[in-house]
Amino acid sequence: MLASFSIFPLDKGVSVGKYVAKMIDIVDRSGLPYRTSAMSTVVEGGWDNVFKVLKRCHQTLMKGSKRAYMVITIDDRKGARNRLKGKVDRIEQVLKRKISR
Amino acid sequence: MLASFSIFPLDKGVSVGKYVAKMIDIVDRSGLPYRTSAMSTVVEGGWDNVFKVLKRCHQTLMKGSKRAYMVITIDDRKGARNRLKGKVDRIEQVLKRKISR
Amino acid sequence: MLASFSIFPLDKGVSVGKYVAKMIDIVDRSGLPYRTSAMSTVVEGGWDNVFKVLKRCHQTLMKGSKRAYMVITIDDRKGARNRLKGKVDRIEQVLKRKISR
Amino acid sequence: MLASFSIFPLDKGVSVGKYVAKMIDIVDRSGLPYRTSAMSTVVEGGWDNVFKVLKRCHQTLMKGSKRAYMVITIDDRKGARNRLKGKVDRIEQVLKRKISR
Repeated sequence: MLASFSIFPLDKGVSVGKYVAKMIDIVDRSGLPYRTSAMSTVVEGGWDNVFKVLKRCHQTLMKGSKRAYMVITIDDRKGARNRLKGKVDRIEQVLKRKISR
Repeated sequence: MLASFSIFPLDKGVSVGKYVAKMIDIVDRSGLPYRTSAMSTVVEGGWDNVFKVLKRCHQTLMKGSKRAYMVITIDDRKGARNRLKGKVDRIEQVLKRKISR
Repeated sequence: MLASFSIFPLDKGVSVGKYVAKMIDIVDRSGLPYRTSAMSTVVEGGWDNVFKVLKRCHQTLMKGSKRAYMVITIDDRKGARNRLKGKVDRIEQVLKRKISR
Repeated sequence: MLASFSIFPLDKGVSVGKYVAKMIDIVDRSGLPYRTSAMSTVVEGGWDNVFKVLKRCHQTLMKGSKRAYMVITIDDRKGARNRLKGKVDRIEQVLKRKISR
């Protein structure tokens, strides 16, 4: 399955890059395939593997924060694999041109 | 923490009430405090308890579906409790009048 | 259509109830049918009416804030009306019992 | 501001790539800076420009669909620009290494 997520603290003011970077570091070291964009990070894996990483992110952030907000979207398609790259490839196939990714 | 979630199948056509009802049934039987609205269900509990229920919803739906989509938002505030009701009460206190809930 | 939304500032610290209350006040005075829960407010109306209210919320919050975050989910079903109440009624019909709302 | 969005029909079965491609085509032709990932497309611009594009996506999809679902997240930071690339650059600066994007 694909899980897109964003997580950030509410008590650290306007600049939260330092905290978000720590979250991406956790995902990066998890070994799961992922891609980070300006608004979220998409991770690919089974439910347990994905949520082990998301829980670690949440717990790490809450250690130093009084309030955190998280948004997760999940797209699970039976039998589908390598969707992190494949779903965008498919868009380009349909449009017969490259898009911004 | 508070977790708001929505989950539905993509391969069952326009009417998905039957599938969504099964998800609410799982939440209702979980024993966790919750509230269902037209767009999502908000559950209150610790990370493990909440995601045990959400995983059960996801797995149950995927048993009979080829593709499912899920949106989860989490608001975790250290030391805060009874926020399912308390957060809306607080809005009414600030506004000094009843709102639609 | 139904639009569920949450909006809050990132530069006001842990307690944002005062700011959220102002947003609900805007929705309440808009005349659109709505319901507020602990995690979001669901508004019912056409695209233009709904986004006029959401834009007013966003602009009002940004007047006094340096950074704001917003989550919106939309469910649009052709020909369907009174879904704010109707969707939850339907869940109870399927389950043949009352749920927590 | 940055707006991440996903939109898809509920009445077209498991494969919705054809419909999603049409949405990306609309964004691509809008002239707004954007990036598409496996789970969403992030667009950068002012409120009116962004929602003009999102409304066009929604209306185009609803022309041929009976029910559509949309998720939008917005991050607006006063005075900030070029955040589509800049936010991920900042993560790499903090971590002092390249990440998957």
